[in-house]
Amino acid sequence: MEYDVVDTQISPEGQLEILSKAEVNKLLDSGKGGLYNVFRKCALAVLNCGSTIDDGKELLERYQSFDISIVQRERGIKLDIKGAPAIAFVDGKMIKGIHEHLFSVLRDIIFVSNEITGNPKFDLDKTEGITDAVFHILRNAGVLKPMLNPNLVVCWGGHSINRAEYNYSKEVGYAMGLRDLDICTGCGPGAMKGPMKGATIGHAKQRLNRGRYLGITEPGIIAAESPNPIVNELVIMPDIEKRLEAFVRTGHGIVVFPGGAGTAEEILYILGILLHPDNADIPFPLIFTGPETSREYFVQINQFIHDTLGPEAQQRYKIIIDDPEMVAREMQAGIKMVREFRKLRSDAYYYNWGLKIDSEFQRPFPPTHENMRNLSLHKNQPVHLLAANLRRAFSGVVAGNVKEEGMRAIEKHGHFEIHGDKQIMGPMDALLASFVAQSRMKLAGKPYTPCYRVIQ
Amino acid sequence: MEYDVVDTQISPEGQLEILSKAEVNKLLDSGKGGLYNVFRKCALAVLNCGSTIDDGKELLERYQSFDISIVQRERGIKLDIKGAPAIAFVDGKMIKGIHEHLFSVLRDIIFVSNEITGNPKFDLDKTEGITDAVFHILRNAGVLKPMLNPNLVVCWGGHSINRAEYNYSKEVGYAMGLRDLDICTGCGPGAMKGPMKGATIGHAKQRLNRGRYLGITEPGIIAAESPNPIVNELVIMPDIEKRLEAFVRTGHGIVVFPGGAGTAEEILYILGILLHPDNADIPFPLIFTGPETSREYFVQINQFIHDTLGPEAQQRYKIIIDDPEMVAREMQAGIKMVREFRKLRSDAYYYNWGLKIDSEFQRPFPPTHENMRNLSLHKNQPVHLLAANLRRAFSGVVAGNVKEEGMRAIEKHGHFEIHGDKQIMGPMDALLASFVAQSRMKLAGKPYTPCYRVIQ
Amino acid sequence: MEYDVVDTQISPEGQLEILSKAEVNKLLDSGKGGLYNVFRKCALAVLNCGSTIDDGKELLERYQSFDISIVQRERGIKLDIKGAPAIAFVDGKMIKGIHEHLFSVLRDIIFVSNEITGNPKFDLDKTEGITDAVFHILRNAGVLKPMLNPNLVVCWGGHSINRAEYNYSKEVGYAMGLRDLDICTGCGPGAMKGPMKGATIGHAKQRLNRGRYLGITEPGIIAAESPNPIVNELVIMPDIEKRLEAFVRTGHGIVVFPGGAGTAEEILYILGILLHPDNADIPFPLIFTGPETSREYFVQINQFIHDTLGPEAQQRYKIIIDDPEMVAREMQAGIKMVREFRKLRSDAYYYNWGLKIDSEFQRPFPPTHENMRNLSLHKNQPVHLLAANLRRAFSGVVAGNVKEEGMRAIEKHGHFEIHGDKQIMGPMDALLASFVAQSRMKLAGKPYTPCYRVIQ
Amino acid sequence: MEYDVVDTQISPEGQLEILSKAEVNKLLDSGKGGLYNVFRKCALAVLNCGSTIDDGKELLERYQSFDISIVQRERGIKLDIKGAPAIAFVDGKMIKGIHEHLFSVLRDIIFVSNEITGNPKFDLDKTEGITDAVFHILRNAGVLKPMLNPNLVVCWGGHSINRAEYNYSKEVGYAMGLRDLDICTGCGPGAMKGPMKGATIGHAKQRLNRGRYLGITEPGIIAAESPNPIVNELVIMPDIEKRLEAFVRTGHGIVVFPGGAGTAEEILYILGILLHPDNADIPFPLIFTGPETSREYFVQINQFIHDTLGPEAQQRYKIIIDDPEMVAREMQAGIKMVREFRKLRSDAYYYNWGLKIDSEFQRPFPPTHENMRNLSLHKNQPVHLLAANLRRAFSGVVAGNVKEEGMRAIEKHGHFEIHGDKQIMGPMDALLASFVAQSRMKLAGKPYTPCYRVIQ
Repeated sequence: MEYDVVDTQISPEGQLEILSKAEVNKLLDSGKGGLYNVFRKCALAVLNCGSTIDDGKELLERYQSFDISIVQRERGIKLDIKGAPAIAFVDGKMIKGIHEHLFSVLRDIIFVSNEITGNPKFDLDKTEGITDAVFHILRNAGVLKPMLNPNLVVCWGGHSINRAEYNYSKEVGYAMGLRDLDICTGCGPGAMKGPMKGATIGHAKQRLNRGRYLGITEPGIIAAESPNPIVNELVIMPDIEKRLEAFVRTGHGIVVFPGGAGTAEEILYILGILLHPDNADIPFPLIFTGPETSREYFVQINQFIHDTLGPEAQQRYKIIIDDPEMVAREMQAGIKMVREFRKLRSDAYYYNWGLKIDSEFQRPFPPTHENMRNLSLHKNQPVHLLAANLRRAFSGVVAGNVKEEGMRAIEKHGHFEIHGDKQIMGPMDALLASFVAQSRMKLAGKPYTPCYRVIQ
Repeated sequence: MEYDVVDTQISPEGQLEILSKAEVNKLLDSGKGGLYNVFRKCALAVLNCGSTIDDGKELLERYQSFDISIVQRERGIKLDIKGAPAIAFVDGKMIKGIHEHLFSVLRDIIFVSNEITGNPKFDLDKTEGITDAVFHILRNAGVLKPMLNPNLVVCWGGHSINRAEYNYSKEVGYAMGLRDLDICTGCGPGAMKGPMKGATIGHAKQRLNRGRYLGITEPGIIAAESPNPIVNELVIMPDIEKRLEAFVRTGHGIVVFPGGAGTAEEILYILGILLHPDNADIPFPLIFTGPETSREYFVQINQFIHDTLGPEAQQRYKIIIDDPEMVAREMQAGIKMVREFRKLRSDAYYYNWGLKIDSEFQRPFPPTHENMRNLSLHKNQPVHLLAANLRRAFSGVVAGNVKEEGMRAIEKHGHFEIHGDKQIMGPMDALLASFVAQSRMKLAGKPYTPCYRVIQ
Repeated sequence: MEYDVVDTQISPEGQLEILSKAEVNKLLDSGKGGLYNVFRKCALAVLNCGSTIDDGKELLERYQSFDISIVQRERGIKLDIKGAPAIAFVDGKMIKGIHEHLFSVLRDIIFVSNEITGNPKFDLDKTEGITDAVFHILRNAGVLKPMLNPNLVVCWGGHSINRAEYNYSKEVGYAMGLRDLDICTGCGPGAMKGPMKGATIGHAKQRLNRGRYLGITEPGIIAAESPNPIVNELVIMPDIEKRLEAFVRTGHGIVVFPGGAGTAEEILYILGILLHPDNADIPFPLIFTGPETSREYFVQINQFIHDTLGPEAQQRYKIIIDDPEMVAREMQAGIKMVREFRKLRSDAYYYNWGLKIDSEFQRPFPPTHENMRNLSLHKNQPVHLLAANLRRAFSGVVAGNVKEEGMRAIEKHGHFEIHGDKQIMGPMDALLASFVAQSRMKLAGKPYTPCYRVIQ
Repeated sequence: MEYDVVDTQISPEGQLEILSKAEVNKLLDSGKGGLYNVFRKCALAVLNCGSTIDDGKELLERYQSFDISIVQRERGIKLDIKGAPAIAFVDGKMIKGIHEHLFSVLRDIIFVSNEITGNPKFDLDKTEGITDAVFHILRNAGVLKPMLNPNLVVCWGGHSINRAEYNYSKEVGYAMGLRDLDICTGCGPGAMKGPMKGATIGHAKQRLNRGRYLGITEPGIIAAESPNPIVNELVIMPDIEKRLEAFVRTGHGIVVFPGGAGTAEEILYILGILLHPDNADIPFPLIFTGPETSREYFVQINQFIHDTLGPEAQQRYKIIIDDPEMVAREMQAGIKMVREFRKLRSDAYYYNWGLKIDSEFQRPFPPTHENMRNLSLHKNQPVHLLAANLRRAFSGVVAGNVKEEGMRAIEKHGHFEIHGDKQIMGPMDALLASFVAQSRMKLAGKPYTPCYRVIQ
């Protein structure tokens, strides 16, 4: 099958138009130390926005002739693009939002390569070093805004939810937009797009021209969750752990919409952090919400948390079913407490330095068959560490479902095997089964083939 | 039944904050020469936005305690508002878009009273005088923007269309927004809201922060078609004829969505103008469009035009069914021709001085029983004059359906009686019957009672 | 002698680019009801900025071929200019500030003609009508800014002062600019230019990009006091009385630098107003200042005020010699009191409605030989009316010195004759003699020939 | 003697308000690896702006209690300042321009420390590494603006010139400002302030609100040449050689006003570069100019260049006496050639990558007694290397005159001794003697004591 493609040249419209000669060379270099390959892959994902493709591997195969390179001109650089997916264009002209995203990709890839990797100033083996690196990447991306009051709501949830759930997420976004709340998501479709669209209308009615739609992604997921063009601030973090840290340190509260295993992973991540004893006093509004038809999803999640992490964990979130206005009002009230808390301690509004994130949550977890097999899934550990390990289990499932590397590993070595205590593996199996029953484990149009096997 | 109300004070954010003492006094004066009554009525309509009420009379009765007055402060004026519909507020704070609309109302009411009415410089008995008055009202409202290329698309259609039609109008708006087309409507719900919402998303993706959502209304219709808050430029013309003239002189093309009698009236208005011999060479893109499910509406309209105005009239529009992209592309192409035509003749882009509008289309038509009875509905007249008279017939039907005064007249004197040639009255009756059959003559939730009787 | 001239076409950059057909025709009409002649004359004065010519008559003779007309284009109007003084151009391109001034001239001439003259809404025979007209002209010019705190200092003084005085006025402007005070002057050279230049540097150091340099002029004086291009808001009032009213109603305080008869006229004008019993409680900072070398000028003025208006009048001003910092600080303190006073009474900051201006100060005073001869210059009247008459006497002297009409009258009929009480005519003669002695009555490069004769 | 001081806290207004915890700690650290001392010294210099002190040592002694530290707040950082020179304040409030400069100092000190020093990516032993470092410092400072046409004129000349020369430099700045040329200087008083003040007025008349007044300085000279507050972009380069490279790579042309030894140093620097064979074809407008009364200065310089570097060197500059308009027009014409040259080769407008700067001009030259004694001042070397060595000789003289370290060395070890060929040392001695004769070697108010001895 043939796919329509377009060739074009585009110019940036900001600081980025100025690159040094060394930076340009590194981007053109497809060799080992070069950045060409990762840049090309992320650029293609950005350009494929709106398409229903869900798999980085497939994407690269589909647009084999795609090429992107940098040209130096007297007024700054240009990107020379060949064989780009036609979906990124309207009547032959690239959609401006996508145009911007390409330069965000460029910016972050250069910065991470130049300033983070191999810079003796960031000790990436230490918690402080990682947190500092996350801070520098976000600051360089212009995402940390001083002088603003806290108002950034992270929205998590599935990227292939059903129509009712999608419409509901728009309504929640609309109610939040009317209240001057900004939206941050993982920037793909579904629950990551709905709240932004809703907030766009809410902001328009309130004449909030500077509404922020922040997307935070990473090279491993960007192909499956291509940023929708409403995203007007895009950051490419180097890996999934730094991406998650970026969410919780920049967002002032989190709303979780229905999803599948990926959403469960995110829930376990934030609960694991909030359950750390050092964070006991830190206010952090966390709301799970969906339309009436999705009630079951959160009933199951709530049960699973109760069974594995205990009732204490249930104190850190609220579940609100089918009431967008109340979600928005609760979030607003929660963020007001965040503001008061930080003001009292002169903590920055734009970066939650105070939150303790255990190194267990920071270290990349490569979802190999071996790592999956060796997870510590038992109750004989502090609850926040159990959450960390449960998070990894779900992370592996997500990788096996949609991430390039994970899918290749499954193709080669078969199912992941997940071991653990009965009191944990039972609820986990039940939860995953309910996801399958609710059709939350399959991708648009394809039947779901599980990539894991729970072994008790 | 009780309705929630809110009291508040609001400040303007533009030039308007500066009023002279005489202007303030006139606005506070509810006597004969004063402006208080019309200001209160329009203000209430603006505040009631989003409610499903459809009738000015009902609205005024519902909010009897509503009061609005002007207070002078050292930094400019404020509006003191009591008993306003709660729907205009989010958590007690007025929605910013509605806030702006109140000051637009104020601006236009003052301007028309001070500078137009009774000013010897505008001879409102002459075509040129009316056209000049329309120009001055629009210029004062800041709606005539120099230096912009033509890109303003007027969208007409019903305010109580069905879900499929509404969603379709959003898609057309989205496709136009992606192409940097701006939207102008009569600013109520339905086909007047959908294109603006769609264009908002399209503009956001293209980073067009200055997207224009122009609403043009008049005191007689504003209660039934309350401006939705996305409208970011609102003008209150003094009467329906000047409102229609404002549409065709500022817009660069027109898209007509399905509607009922009001939409038919608008179609007859624009066709009557375009069929004037003096306008034969003037390009003016005019597209009728709807989803597949609304095909019948335009089939009927098309037949009616064929039967009454003839095939010549059919040359001035295109019908496109179920293809938002093509509507947007055709409109863009049509506007390009408008641009070339005006450029060649150094005609203004922002006001179509060149279009001949016969005084028949400019003179207010009071839909009294007598006027309705005396309409000249026969073929023995130039086709553009027949269009003018047909337009009036439909105008009367709309008044009898939704306008305060018209409804009162019907209550008092019974049905309007419409006379005319068989070749005209036949198709007219058929068209109106098809509207009823398609449920296009009833208001949300109420059964339709016809206000007219066709007499052949 | 030949003068360099340039032909060019320029476009406006604001609302003004939109004129109706009727407005354009009126501007092109050099007949009786047309505006061409006054527009051409004012436009030429604006273009001659920076030249040392001091006489409208001479200017018109020098550039006889000068022509200005309006061309309609698709994006708005253009001005077609022929035979313009080369001094307005840098390397063939018109200086942007002058470019703007031409459109300010156009705006005010159109507005006064369309909206003020002959509009039954302004009764120009009444005090309230005149004050309302002044308000509308200023509002239309965008000069009345809401939301700003009071900070506008009117600077008066001679347009042909010496170098030391000019430098001193720059220093005062600099000290005021550093304190975020804006400047308003009659917009010619000398004491009208120095404070603006100084404030420009002060504002630049404080990064006040929106510093206002407001020039208020009128057709009779503009040729002699051509607006310097730093003026970034220019208003052409219809006559000298409305110009003076504009100064005192928009400015929040006045600084008077040394000058000649024109400056004395201005001093008498403001004192006459402040001495009106109704204004007794209104705060209005008024400072006379100059360098050490100009001390004598204010000694004489002070003596004259003492002798004619009495010690009471001396309470309304402060004299500060050779201390720019103190001038700025005193003005700032005085304006703070203005702010508090108006805030307390909810009076507008941008227009001093509360100030009583007697109709004696509002009625134009045509300086004919007869009017000059009939002035009531005796002590047998309220002090503010004596001030009004003294003001007229000096006004006649200024007209005879620099205004076209006045100079023609003197050429034809000889000296003005001024009668009055000894106690008044003595000090007046002494003051005028001191002006001559201080070389304050001659124009650059020409010896002074008095145009009046004091008769006791 | 006591000096007035002020305590205050100030907030930044840009990206810089966001510092990481590690960055704050480093700035507060007065230990060896810390940045406190250099930050304090530069901050004090910035605050002392406008004072006539000319010597960093004296400055630090005068304000011994001066302290500056960083405080973290919820909306970003603040600077806590104690014992600051009162001259930086107006009525107790810091002048905004100075306020900005403090944060520029902070920005550059952090960036150089974090990203340049010790970063393996910049090999500061190589020409390319230095040029890249200069690029990164300037880019981080926001000084490299894409999309702008070349228009940046570097102005060099003395910081203690006489009144006529200062006024002349203002006139040149004014003529350049009227032509939309921006100004870059070393940012002290005299010839570094005059052109900026003049250009401010020129830009105001042309409504060029974004006029750039770029100051480039370094920690060793900032105390003596404290940035005047009109400077609206300030960069602190790490040393004098990188500062000079920043001038020639960002500026599009250079105007040299009269000065003393420092100016001669700058002339030799730029000539040495332009005479490099690789730069033979690169257009680079270079104009020496002054008022009639300073003609002698350039006669001497011209003679010295003729005698030492030869007539070939004289081809690279023009001398224009007493004609500001012509200077501006010549510079504009020269920059037009720069633009065409770069456009043709797709070279960046904002950074002159193409210019070859020999490592001789990049390596810091510590003006020790030994280094001064060992300079190669003979004709037996390529002319651009001779220029490099002559440049160093003058650099040493400047250091001995005004730089802290140099002055201490002279205090301790006596005069510098400068050796060389007769054909070179003769003209050099003559030139330095003419500087003394023209009073160009003494500082304001103090007699000049030479710090060197020419030995032939």
